[in-house]
Amino acid sequence: MPENLVRLKERLARLKRLSEVSELLGWDQQTYMPEGAAASRGEQSAVLSQLIHDTFVSSETADVLGAAEQEIAGADPDSDDVRMLAVVRRDFDRETRVPSDLVAELSRHQAVAHSIWVRARKENDFASFAPALEKMLDLTRRRAEALGYTEHIYDALLEGYEPSLKRSEVAAMFAGIKPALVEMTRAIGASARPVDASLLHRSYPTEVQKSLTLKLAEEFGFDLKRGRQDEAAHPFCSGFNRDDVRLTTRLDPNYLGQGLYATLHETGHGLYEQGFTVEYDPTPLGTAASLGVHESQSRLWENMVGRSRNYCVHLFPQLQAAFPGALGNETTESFYRAVNRVEPSLIRVEADEVTYNLHIMLRFELECELLTGELKVSDLPEAWNTRMQAYFGITPPTDSEGVLQDVHWSAGLIGYFPTYSLGNVMSGQLWHAVRRAHPDLEEQIRRGQFAQLLEWLRANVHRYGRKYSPATLIEKATGEPINSRYYLEYLTAKFSEIYGL
Amino acid sequence: MPENLVRLKERLARLKRLSEVSELLGWDQQTYMPEGAAASRGEQSAVLSQLIHDTFVSSETADVLGAAEQEIAGADPDSDDVRMLAVVRRDFDRETRVPSDLVAELSRHQAVAHSIWVRARKENDFASFAPALEKMLDLTRRRAEALGYTEHIYDALLEGYEPSLKRSEVAAMFAGIKPALVEMTRAIGASARPVDASLLHRSYPTEVQKSLTLKLAEEFGFDLKRGRQDEAAHPFCSGFNRDDVRLTTRLDPNYLGQGLYATLHETGHGLYEQGFTVEYDPTPLGTAASLGVHESQSRLWENMVGRSRNYCVHLFPQLQAAFPGALGNETTESFYRAVNRVEPSLIRVEADEVTYNLHIMLRFELECELLTGELKVSDLPEAWNTRMQAYFGITPPTDSEGVLQDVHWSAGLIGYFPTYSLGNVMSGQLWHAVRRAHPDLEEQIRRGQFAQLLEWLRANVHRYGRKYSPATLIEKATGEPINSRYYLEYLTAKFSEIYGL
Repeated sequence: MPENLVRLKERLARLKRLSEVSELLGWDQQTYMPEGAAASRGEQSAVLSQLIHDTFVSSETADVLGAAEQEIAGADPDSDDVRMLAVVRRDFDRETRVPSDLVAELSRHQAVAHSIWVRARKENDFASFAPALEKMLDLTRRRAEALGYTEHIYDALLEGYEPSLKRSEVAAMFAGIKPALVEMTRAIGASARPVDASLLHRSYPTEVQKSLTLKLAEEFGFDLKRGRQDEAAHPFCSGFNRDDVRLTTRLDPNYLGQGLYATLHETGHGLYEQGFTVEYDPTPLGTAASLGVHESQSRLWENMVGRSRNYCVHLFPQLQAAFPGALGNETTESFYRAVNRVEPSLIRVEADEVTYNLHIMLRFELECELLTGELKVSDLPEAWNTRMQAYFGITPPTDSEGVLQDVHWSAGLIGYFPTYSLGNVMSGQLWHAVRRAHPDLEEQIRRGQFAQLLEWLRANVHRYGRKYSPATLIEKATGEPINSRYYLEYLTAKFSEIYGL
Repeated sequence: MPENLVRLKERLARLKRLSEVSELLGWDQQTYMPEGAAASRGEQSAVLSQLIHDTFVSSETADVLGAAEQEIAGADPDSDDVRMLAVVRRDFDRETRVPSDLVAELSRHQAVAHSIWVRARKENDFASFAPALEKMLDLTRRRAEALGYTEHIYDALLEGYEPSLKRSEVAAMFAGIKPALVEMTRAIGASARPVDASLLHRSYPTEVQKSLTLKLAEEFGFDLKRGRQDEAAHPFCSGFNRDDVRLTTRLDPNYLGQGLYATLHETGHGLYEQGFTVEYDPTPLGTAASLGVHESQSRLWENMVGRSRNYCVHLFPQLQAAFPGALGNETTESFYRAVNRVEPSLIRVEADEVTYNLHIMLRFELECELLTGELKVSDLPEAWNTRMQAYFGITPPTDSEGVLQDVHWSAGLIGYFPTYSLGNVMSGQLWHAVRRAHPDLEEQIRRGQFAQLLEWLRANVHRYGRKYSPATLIEKATGEPINSRYYLEYLTAKFSEIYGL
């Protein structure tokens, strides 16, 4: 085996293991860490991140990477080694292109802006956050310029979350689905068959929810020998590597929808993380292809499976047995309708399947305009509210329920939002492809059988890890370039039936 | 402030934070980590430990340490800076004296020997463990020679756990207490007032134990904003720093003594960790003075407090209320006697206060003889059993319950055992000193008040962290050099009364 490639892999393996440790710090912080440990945890994370960054962008990495590239020149372009080197080269160039003083300044400002945002949201005081956001945008513009782009400054940022995706492609995708979503939202609002979701808001003891949601995760195929589930204020999935994947959920004793769908969503993420090829551990290929692909997995299990009528047929009797007081007199159909209730709402993370993407589009449009300077920070709240009125027909009564609701911008995560919608679109396309491959898939789900679905996702998505770009991965899996046709068809069919449109 | 000292402190602060992360890996491994993650966790730990070690023993550390020593030459020898540099110098010299290939070989052999031991203990097969132990002793001798010593090879190892303590001092201490302990054990065995501990072996629901033990830890003064309690197969306390201290306990639904005293013991460790001077965080002074001092804190809270009649007066009504089925018809006195039952037994970690130190002496004697070659590994089981018969009057029916019971030797922890007894001795001396300072202390404990005890320990022990050697620390706190008089007086008075000797 080529000597420099071996050395590079050893170096990357050490860095991968350190990154896993860094993720453990984050997981612990959001699950079990005592509150008094926040300051020291911040320092632990900073020291470790700095160390990982410095080691990765060092001249030693540059040398051995360059030498390894020479060694494998001419090898099969689809081999794991060639693909891995391409991924590493891309990361290395991105991380070295931004001057280290700008990296440090951004890191410092993220901490500051985040804490200002926390207070501003709490006190509904956008004005106090505005200067921090202004500075964040300035630093982000400088970072984007350093990273470089050919079409649009936004591309430089987006690429960090979704390799090779362009702002223009996102804009085209949104342009393609927005009219249909706005119209569907309007029609549902005017429907003569409204959905009553009150059955979800009854008494659901959290201890019962805890064991039940874990059982559902396991039923989907989540391997509890290589993972677990805990509780967290904001549910997430943290996969250190394929053998250690931690789901979290949030259990509300008076709202079943919260914990149930948080678990199904995070299980989708977790199944992806557990499914990377064994040999990719610990290499740069043993991680997700992109945020969009990750979200396609969580949304597929949460929505296409978890909110389907067939799954409800399987699930509802279990729920009824677990919560006889709350659900004893309900039917599968009333449960199915309740978990699919659509209503324009203020808060993105609580949005239903139909309106969710409108929240994303609004953010995407605004952050593009902020970045180019078309929109001033001082005009942002008004722009937010105007668009809320246009897309949803409602106006946030406060900025805390409007422009201040999301953590992303305060944390410097600009260019991140579109990946949520991209994940939805991919999930529709994958869902179509897997049902074409297995025509009785929905019948299997009705019987509580998920193995064939998981196997198809393992074979066509999970195992590749980061080997292929999202575009290549989805095209290999579905036979078509990424497109929103199947997602829109899915939404239209489902909600037309539910709301009698 | 002197430039090199500042640079040294920054360097040490980064290393301290990384060590904290390393401890988190260990905590997580024993509490929540899924079993399938063992292999990757081993790699994460190895990469991080290697990195910490390499950074610490680097020429950069040597240079800046040497320069800092120059800068503070002539400063107050009792100042924190001077004491800290002495501690760092000692660590640096110890860590650099052992050749790195020997460090690596020991590390590899620890992993191998540990897994051989696990199997050997399970299958009661000492012969299969013997070669691994032989090799461990060889490597340990080489390590001790590299570390250096003046009196006895054992000193080089002991010093790693208990700074400046010599084998001869341990031997003298044991010689001073052994006859009394052997005689006390014999007399208790012949007592006409035997203790019935069966009340501890009833039904104690673990959920109730869980919340109750946490309440007891908090009552002692353990700060739950800077710590927590979880469950683990082998209870331990892991203090990453003073603001993040994790207790663990083990809850047995049919034995109250397990969880209750595991918590009180670990709380003693935890209070120590939470009590280091704020300004010592994150410096090398913000850790424990030694294993012995650490154990003195756990044993003081577990035994001098937790197994005292006065504490039982406070505790028992709470237990009765929590476990009415098990304890409804019992009395404080019967509970007090039960938790103080003395009986020669095979397993160290289950031993009572009187016989515990005999277990330690046996191990100390054997490991000294193994190290010098006086005792051959092949003769070890017989030597173990002969001494068990001499000290306890019992012989282990299997090696699993005898020479194979402890993890220490398989993990290369040779020279570690005496610190347990040293902790007991120190706890007796501290207990005497604090009651002299506060004559009504036991009355306070009877009322469930622990603040003055904790305050005294904070002021005289905890806050100093690693600033003073154990000998200096105990002498400052008690006005006398470390000695076993008070510990023996404590045991004699307590058990003479209980057993009517």
